[in-house]
Amino acid sequence: MKDKAEQTAQEPDLNFIALQLEGLEETIIYHLIERVQYYKNSVIYVPGKSGFKGFARKSLLDIRLLYHERMDAVFGRFCVPEERPFNIKLPKPRRNVHLPPYPLALKDYNSVNLTGRIKQDYLELADKICRNGDDGQYGSSVENDVFALQAISRRIHYGAFYVAEAKYRKNPSRYRGLVEAREYDALLLALTRTEVEEKIIMRVKAKVRLAQAKVNTKIRTLIDPALILAFYKHTIIPLTKQGEIEYLFNRVPGS
Amino acid sequence: MKDKAEQTAQEPDLNFIALQLEGLEETIIYHLIERVQYYKNSVIYVPGKSGFKGFARKSLLDIRLLYHERMDAVFGRFCVPEERPFNIKLPKPRRNVHLPPYPLALKDYNSVNLTGRIKQDYLELADKICRNGDDGQYGSSVENDVFALQAISRRIHYGAFYVAEAKYRKNPSRYRGLVEAREYDALLLALTRTEVEEKIIMRVKAKVRLAQAKVNTKIRTLIDPALILAFYKHTIIPLTKQGEIEYLFNRVPGS
Repeated sequence: MKDKAEQTAQEPDLNFIALQLEGLEETIIYHLIERVQYYKNSVIYVPGKSGFKGFARKSLLDIRLLYHERMDAVFGRFCVPEERPFNIKLPKPRRNVHLPPYPLALKDYNSVNLTGRIKQDYLELADKICRNGDDGQYGSSVENDVFALQAISRRIHYGAFYVAEAKYRKNPSRYRGLVEAREYDALLLALTRTEVEEKIIMRVKAKVRLAQAKVNTKIRTLIDPALILAFYKHTIIPLTKQGEIEYLFNRVPGS
Repeated sequence: MKDKAEQTAQEPDLNFIALQLEGLEETIIYHLIERVQYYKNSVIYVPGKSGFKGFARKSLLDIRLLYHERMDAVFGRFCVPEERPFNIKLPKPRRNVHLPPYPLALKDYNSVNLTGRIKQDYLELADKICRNGDDGQYGSSVENDVFALQAISRRIHYGAFYVAEAKYRKNPSRYRGLVEAREYDALLLALTRTEVEEKIIMRVKAKVRLAQAKVNTKIRTLIDPALILAFYKHTIIPLTKQGEIEYLFNRVPGS
């Protein structure tokens, strides 16, 4: 029998959550660095141009993402709250997934799913960070796109779910009031901590620079740190807050 | 119609090959760093303990590797010489893979397949670099194991195939003589460049250190660079040379 400490969900703590989010920065940066080692290979993003049997209307990236998520679903990935899938109608897990109790108050984790906008913004990012041209390495390009998309999605949904719940618990009546009044702008303001956002952005920029500091540029392609900074500023941080608001709107009342 | 330059395989060049191998170092290092963010979770390596339906005798890692390679096979990964699979009986590609002509002389790329030994040595490495314990993150652990295994395998097979072919072309009669006489030790000596190996090892060690130089150790786990150095010294470099010898033994005569 497990003891009680293991069965009770821990109180979400903003400092702990911030550290988790910080730890995911390296993962995102590594995958983006790996992606830019290949050319843009734009054809992999064009629906109907995959050259793949049985998917006349999908792009090669979409087909790869579907195959990858079908595999991940079978292994139980999407039982974890922050792992939200880009596809629907995925198979059930085929393994026993032992999950800890999560300190979250959603009936259905998919009631907050920002993957559509994540993919859209990621495609714009890929367009900027990859060199123009075609090296024929389509398989490796979509493989790394999928890794990057999953890492970015995990970061955004983790932040959305846990930060919203932690902030709610600190002041339930205030957030409940704002949600009930559908005060979107006031919610956004309450959830915004400009100095924290600024700190994240500068730290990410420094990490991208450092990760590439001693790279042999004869063979490895570099990313401009400013582009990753901009992606954090204009996509990751705003979508996380968007997710926080959606979390609060979908939060199970009374829990 | 493609022009002739595109259809003729380029002469393998040792400097170009060395740069490719150097470029794969970051990929290997990143994946290992990602793996050690999770605990060892030894149960994922134990056959019969996967908790996965339909695979009574496999470990969770082996099941993940099989699923991943089945997906990769459908996307055409194993049409590329240096991408050798850990599994057999994989499905055929479902997309049109346009491959450049490779300057290699093997009838069947799988006649040189070192994945068995790579997996064995990788499991010993994982045992050393991961923290003891179990965090329940089995899915993420095997996911990163697969990425690391594939990156290491690509490095070893790329080196084995292209270095062997390049060296052969520089002195065909000498290598042909050694192969025909089954002079294993003399071949190993001819293929060994101690000063190059030493340079690789020290460079990898420096890269591991640099990649972790400014990491927040409150949340990210570090790898001892000496362990990666040792893995290059005792696994990656020797297996690459082993693969070079097997390549030469399997090389199609007269080509």
